[in-house]
Amino acid sequence: MASEGKIIEHPKKAFGWAARDTTGVLSPFHFSRRETGEKDVAFKVLYCGICHTDLHMMHNEWGNSIYPLVPGHELVGVVTEVGSKVEKFKVGDKVGVGYMVDSCRSCENCDDNVENYCPQLTVTCGAKYRDGTITYGGYSDSMVADEHFVILIPDNLPLDVAGPLLCAGVTVYSPLRHFGIDKPGMNIGVVGLGGLGHMAVKFAKAFGSNVTVISTSPSKEKEAIEHLGADSFLISRDPDQMQAAKGTLHGIIDTVSASHPVLPLIGLLKTNGKLVMVGGVAKPLELPASSLLGGRKLIAGSLIGGIKETQEMIDFAAEHNVKPEIEIVPIDYVNTAMERLAKADVKYRFVIDIGNSLKESA
Amino acid sequence: MASEGKIIEHPKKAFGWAARDTTGVLSPFHFSRRETGEKDVAFKVLYCGICHTDLHMMHNEWGNSIYPLVPGHELVGVVTEVGSKVEKFKVGDKVGVGYMVDSCRSCENCDDNVENYCPQLTVTCGAKYRDGTITYGGYSDSMVADEHFVILIPDNLPLDVAGPLLCAGVTVYSPLRHFGIDKPGMNIGVVGLGGLGHMAVKFAKAFGSNVTVISTSPSKEKEAIEHLGADSFLISRDPDQMQAAKGTLHGIIDTVSASHPVLPLIGLLKTNGKLVMVGGVAKPLELPASSLLGGRKLIAGSLIGGIKETQEMIDFAAEHNVKPEIEIVPIDYVNTAMERLAKADVKYRFVIDIGNSLKESA
Repeated sequence: MASEGKIIEHPKKAFGWAARDTTGVLSPFHFSRRETGEKDVAFKVLYCGICHTDLHMMHNEWGNSIYPLVPGHELVGVVTEVGSKVEKFKVGDKVGVGYMVDSCRSCENCDDNVENYCPQLTVTCGAKYRDGTITYGGYSDSMVADEHFVILIPDNLPLDVAGPLLCAGVTVYSPLRHFGIDKPGMNIGVVGLGGLGHMAVKFAKAFGSNVTVISTSPSKEKEAIEHLGADSFLISRDPDQMQAAKGTLHGIIDTVSASHPVLPLIGLLKTNGKLVMVGGVAKPLELPASSLLGGRKLIAGSLIGGIKETQEMIDFAAEHNVKPEIEIVPIDYVNTAMERLAKADVKYRFVIDIGNSLKESA
Repeated sequence: MASEGKIIEHPKKAFGWAARDTTGVLSPFHFSRRETGEKDVAFKVLYCGICHTDLHMMHNEWGNSIYPLVPGHELVGVVTEVGSKVEKFKVGDKVGVGYMVDSCRSCENCDDNVENYCPQLTVTCGAKYRDGTITYGGYSDSMVADEHFVILIPDNLPLDVAGPLLCAGVTVYSPLRHFGIDKPGMNIGVVGLGGLGHMAVKFAKAFGSNVTVISTSPSKEKEAIEHLGADSFLISRDPDQMQAAKGTLHGIIDTVSASHPVLPLIGLLKTNGKLVMVGGVAKPLELPASSLLGGRKLIAGSLIGGIKETQEMIDFAAEHNVKPEIEIVPIDYVNTAMERLAKADVKYRFVIDIGNSLKESA
């Protein structure tokens, strides 16, 4: 059920765009952010990516949205103030915040640097901080967060492309690394070619893999190979192509959220092959156990990534020139961008130019 | 479809019990085995375990049985003859043969010591050798097999308990090892307490794990803990018990072949937890992807084990005193044993005393 959060007036004025209810329409919104605490980093937001999750949350599709909802969990900018005990950041640093702004910091998951699996995870927007106040995301002019949850953006990575790495990037980087399907020469499949899928192609290529894009749309072949650098393309609805590719892949990153059969994907895997789902398919998967037994295969899930891994990911991306494909839009285009995103009409990630377009007069 | 194989009269007379058709009734059967080839090991069979697979095959439940069918793929005995190029065995050695007697020896799986996943795997009974002749299993007085597929039974391991290790043992040992759920102090669940399940408890205990048996039958609790050494017992139909155990297990070996819900099992796993199926559940599994995403969990399958791993397993079993619980029966009890096995009325593995009970006059 959607709910309203406790609105406390903090001393720091902030401005952004918010959805007020489940219609999801975004409009200008004045709010406030907390004072910069001793472990906090405050930064001016310059860019914020638009993730499909924003769309789900704005319309309360998962039933837990809190309004007013300022979306955005791929926000980057420049540090304006640091607390007295902040160790990793200084004013002027390029930084970003991804999907989460807090976790319990004491459970096994937090100890293992996978705060993303902490049961008390606090997400960056539309949730509540421990004090009950609402978390507001990156469709706004400023941010303040505990330095533990702030990522340093390497100098050679342009800020406009850095945002989408913080969610879409680490969501595919993490499973490639964790499940060991990141070795040079491996054959890696990527299902779906949206915000997540196109990043999976780029990271897998950067790891030295042979990448096959698996899609229902033949129209994407040219783009996948010529523009994104995939090695081959497989139309999942073509039984002959699927048969010919049987048993050839070491791993698959499946980014598709819509319901789709996974059994043909498992058939593409070699012995010890791994199918990792990163899209939250709502309809239960159906697969015979025998499809896993014959070849010691596995099907797994993975959700974003921990903070340490996010930093590793972005350092790797900067070093290996892995950049999302983006379409930069002004804030007053955001409602149109959402409509286009709902129709998958974007290559491959919208990024809002907060710094140049978000004005209080808007 | 059941079929009849090419019956060639080899020079070596052999005698066993065979099913002649899908009724599965076993009766005395004269046949022949090939001469001991240069890489072959011939041995006198002394014991043979009865696996549930025998029951499936005798009744052609998988549609690929070849009659006459001499079951048995957990056979052990003493070497009587070795070929001129045999390197690992000598006359008098205690040896055994498990689920397979041949594979292509040249594919990636064979090269990786997982012959069990070779597409051209030849199983020990009810199948065909490359020359088209039928493979006859261990419900018989003698065996001949390429030394690559022969396992050396350590001297300190009694022969009567060695047989079930070659199939049931390695079937649970292999996934515990391969998926890294074999570390001291780990919390390991075992679903089902039959031939496979009781071996999973014993191996997991030998690895130093805390073992929880998960069962639908409260009546098995005392046995599981007091006799088999499990640390705790969970009734899968008790929502309170299942809720209390949520997120506590590093791994689960699921040995149940009957259709059962896997979602509650996934709920028992910690972050990065692994559910490995070793029973060939016919009905497709149903599970929401979100159950895997939230905690980076995986569900996998595993099928017996490779030859190298089978030898490691049996050496480990001998060193750590891991022995199956068996009920020794004479060959003329085998049809009754099969009826009891179909009703799960055995603790936990029938072993036929071939050496003392199989007589041509039977």
